[in-house]
Amino acid sequence: MEVLVPFSTDRPKSRLSSVLSSTEREAFARAMLHDVLAAVADAGGNPTLIATEPTEHGNDGVSARTLRESVHELASEPRVVVDDRDLSTAVNALLAERKPTPSSPVAIVMADLALARPGTLRRLFDADGDVAIAPGRGGGTNAIVVRHPEFRTDYHGASYLDHLRIAAEVGANVREIDSHRLASDVDEPTDLSELLIHGDGAATEWLRTVGFTLDVADGRVTVGRD
Amino acid sequence: MEVLVPFSTDRPKSRLSSVLSSTEREAFARAMLHDVLAAVADAGGNPTLIATEPTEHGNDGVSARTLRESVHELASEPRVVVDDRDLSTAVNALLAERKPTPSSPVAIVMADLALARPGTLRRLFDADGDVAIAPGRGGGTNAIVVRHPEFRTDYHGASYLDHLRIAAEVGANVREIDSHRLASDVDEPTDLSELLIHGDGAATEWLRTVGFTLDVADGRVTVGRD
Repeated sequence: MEVLVPFSTDRPKSRLSSVLSSTEREAFARAMLHDVLAAVADAGGNPTLIATEPTEHGNDGVSARTLRESVHELASEPRVVVDDRDLSTAVNALLAERKPTPSSPVAIVMADLALARPGTLRRLFDADGDVAIAPGRGGGTNAIVVRHPEFRTDYHGASYLDHLRIAAEVGANVREIDSHRLASDVDEPTDLSELLIHGDGAATEWLRTVGFTLDVADGRVTVGRD
Repeated sequence: MEVLVPFSTDRPKSRLSSVLSSTEREAFARAMLHDVLAAVADAGGNPTLIATEPTEHGNDGVSARTLRESVHELASEPRVVVDDRDLSTAVNALLAERKPTPSSPVAIVMADLALARPGTLRRLFDADGDVAIAPGRGGGTNAIVVRHPEFRTDYHGASYLDHLRIAAEVGANVREIDSHRLASDVDEPTDLSELLIHGDGAATEWLRTVGFTLDVADGRVTVGRD
């Protein structure tokens, strides 16, 4: 199954700026991307990276070189498609081109699902339904499998509800994938605790290396940094 | 399978005090309890309610009468055990009495898992493992099946990690249940959005009735109240 993995190369993970510098956010985003691409490949998916900006540049984004570095140790290097339009437009362009069907599905998996294990993604890939959606916490759509040629994405706002509506409009049935690992995208400082509790990949290792630890002193779980 | 459902009758859901009055919090907690007990029963479980305080009293807690009201429409009324000790002590007393085994397991399901559907709980009940744990967001233990006579609970702090340790100490293997619905206990105002997005039970209906709606105006999902 082809698996599209959109990755924002321009100032990734800005909502972590209170706990990570821009250089650190770039390294952390790359580590999460690495974990996601490895899990996709181990689950039998063929990843296509959708990068918003591939060229070397002077700001604090992720360059093509560092992107290549972050994926070079994977068994098979993913295809890279460059598209600097917004997420939905870039994904929909590929859906229009691929025309997904039950025998030729296309998945879209977010690059910050660092808790996803191969088995988690296998559960998503194996689920039936013209559209199989793993909702994110807060109404997002963290991972989706499309088996219907007319379905299109709309990632703005409560995209999970929008995707239910769009599926109904094109006559596609929907299957919900109920997964905490897929629901847990990593955007904000509180999300880091999920990685420290449940993670076992490069992103979790990176967090530990730079000094993040769980703080459970007062009975509530937070993260601290040494 | 016997399913213990601990319910704090004394000032339930205090962390929702910024958006709900004490009377409202009591009604909302009862609606969630109703949803959980109904889902447990529909999944084939036999619920035992562990109430921390059963008697009529003058404060803003939940009385025995209102507890009976909240469960009286269920097909079979659950057993009620009264135990005013802390959660872990009350649960462990019952585990010591029941001596769970693979052929006679005992589950513990939190009373605020209002997103749990019968199918969600069936996945938990059917999972193998001496201990099957559905982690909560933030390191909690929202639902657990115990099939080992020596396993005990410790719900303080990051209980998920504590339960992994306790299981290892008594030689019990552990299975993780990866479920967003079981990970989403409802404690804080932001948790209400999950119910408005994914819920279909009495608690969600109650929230809508008192005026809660999703607010997605700025691309981020929050809850508002009319």
